[in-house]
Amino acid sequence: MNYEHQLNTDLTPQYITKLRDEFNDALRVLSLPKHPTYLYEPISYVFSGEGKRLRPILLYITGDSLGATEKDLKYAGIAVELLHNFTLVHDDIMDQDDLRHGQHTIHKKWDESTAILAGDGIYVMSLSMIAKVQNHPLEVIGTFNDAALIVCEGQAYDKQYEYDTNITLDEYLIMVEKKTGWLIGLCTELGGILGNQQLETIQSLKKFGTKLGTAFQIQDDMLEITANEKNMGKSLGSDLTRGKQTILSILAREKNQKDWQNLNSNILEIDRSIKIQKEFLEANGILKKADQMIQSYIDQAIDTLKYIPDPCNSRLLQFTKLILNRDH
Amino acid sequence: MNYEHQLNTDLTPQYITKLRDEFNDALRVLSLPKHPTYLYEPISYVFSGEGKRLRPILLYITGDSLGATEKDLKYAGIAVELLHNFTLVHDDIMDQDDLRHGQHTIHKKWDESTAILAGDGIYVMSLSMIAKVQNHPLEVIGTFNDAALIVCEGQAYDKQYEYDTNITLDEYLIMVEKKTGWLIGLCTELGGILGNQQLETIQSLKKFGTKLGTAFQIQDDMLEITANEKNMGKSLGSDLTRGKQTILSILAREKNQKDWQNLNSNILEIDRSIKIQKEFLEANGILKKADQMIQSYIDQAIDTLKYIPDPCNSRLLQFTKLILNRDH
Repeated sequence: MNYEHQLNTDLTPQYITKLRDEFNDALRVLSLPKHPTYLYEPISYVFSGEGKRLRPILLYITGDSLGATEKDLKYAGIAVELLHNFTLVHDDIMDQDDLRHGQHTIHKKWDESTAILAGDGIYVMSLSMIAKVQNHPLEVIGTFNDAALIVCEGQAYDKQYEYDTNITLDEYLIMVEKKTGWLIGLCTELGGILGNQQLETIQSLKKFGTKLGTAFQIQDDMLEITANEKNMGKSLGSDLTRGKQTILSILAREKNQKDWQNLNSNILEIDRSIKIQKEFLEANGILKKADQMIQSYIDQAIDTLKYIPDPCNSRLLQFTKLILNRDH
Repeated sequence: MNYEHQLNTDLTPQYITKLRDEFNDALRVLSLPKHPTYLYEPISYVFSGEGKRLRPILLYITGDSLGATEKDLKYAGIAVELLHNFTLVHDDIMDQDDLRHGQHTIHKKWDESTAILAGDGIYVMSLSMIAKVQNHPLEVIGTFNDAALIVCEGQAYDKQYEYDTNITLDEYLIMVEKKTGWLIGLCTELGGILGNQQLETIQSLKKFGTKLGTAFQIQDDMLEITANEKNMGKSLGSDLTRGKQTILSILAREKNQKDWQNLNSNILEIDRSIKIQKEFLEANGILKKADQMIQSYIDQAIDTLKYIPDPCNSRLLQFTKLILNRDH
């Protein structure tokens, strides 16, 4: 990995791509043993493809602009990406999702036992990686562990809320903040710790990432309906049809519970279901309302930037604009 | 937890029971949040019962006799027991075992998704606990992480070897050493690190535990056939009948592959199967040979005691005698 980046580099799409390529390369060449193949083949498979690597990029950008060392940012960046992938492997089993980043999930390509163990192994690898940081290692490790438990709690709420049509918008938002927001908040928080910031600044960085991550997840819920499967690289429409609570189903229920339930009680062919749901959501202003909610979380994130020193704050603002402007 | 133990207390069964009660109590009152219930109810359930708690007891005895602090031994002891239980919860899903310590496993009482997440949560809790030690925290954390990956490798070999009747005794022994031996070796190793020992002594302690743990697992394989279900608190005979490689099946194959295969190709009612297997194993001297193998590992363990200072070595010898003298 080549870390000859300039502190004041403008956050161009080219620069993001360069960082992404570097993290993709680093993950592909993780020094994995060959044996036992039962454990390491599926782990290699997970990192053989390309990923967006948004989390390590965000961590890198944050810490780099606060003066953290390149080595520490590399270790911590890879660690959060491994942590993220551990949660994906296990969540995909729990949610019976067959596609991820355009390829079969482990439990689909192999079986559930293989996927459980591969997820465990990836998590252990993330711990070994985070333990390599030189600056404030105990604080970094403690923060990393705390975040992992919150992410488990978020996934637990997600499972607990399945098929529960009494879930309120507030409950949904807490779930999303824990499940997705917290891990993205961990990236900016670690960037701050590795960059020797004061507690108040680290708290602001964490809040920025958590709010940004929550916006990102709500956007993901929306893309289930508005994007197409090829762009997303995973099965679409599955959340709504299998009873997952998403921003759209909750807002739809709040708007017109009876019509929404009628519409969903007829099990149709999946593409047809999505089309009907989409028409309902548009006609009832739900997509617009969800968009406003995303904007509100972005505003909350941006509002914390005033507590974060230059050039970190301006780079985080640029990053926000780049990642939320997406169709997948 | 009351740690008013005497360094030179004789390792009586009463003393072991006292330590066990203390660890059982500590695990029962782990300060778990109530919500999300999806995550914390099954975790509480795992620790509501009594366990043998051999690993934390071994860690405690080792470190206590080397002058480690009571607080550190408490944290590290609970951490290894949590790590152990995380592996049990996930292994039970992979092996489809329905009973553990006389009660239903999580995936049986709830479902597989609940069990995957509960296992993850228990593991995260173990990491938070191990990170609390005050003495050599980074060395302790690194050792803990390394051991967790080896245990995953051991479980991977176990799964990989299922139904593979070409597995040799050596391959089986490597699998057992990684799957079970290593975690018990971690206990004595951590006791040594927390007790400020030199690297050579720590290596001897690790070797002692690993060999002892391997003996313990081979004994466990034997008890599948020689014990009864009530004593073991888990389903018996399931390993052999579902194609798991155990010390007995491998030695039986080595002795008389054809007869052993014939005997196992007739699927019978489980109790009848176990009876026929047991007769074959006795008649062919397999049980005796497995016993000799256990003794050889115990000898290797005891042989390392000469590199371990008093009173640690004499207490470890006493512990060895107490735990291997069991019928469950």
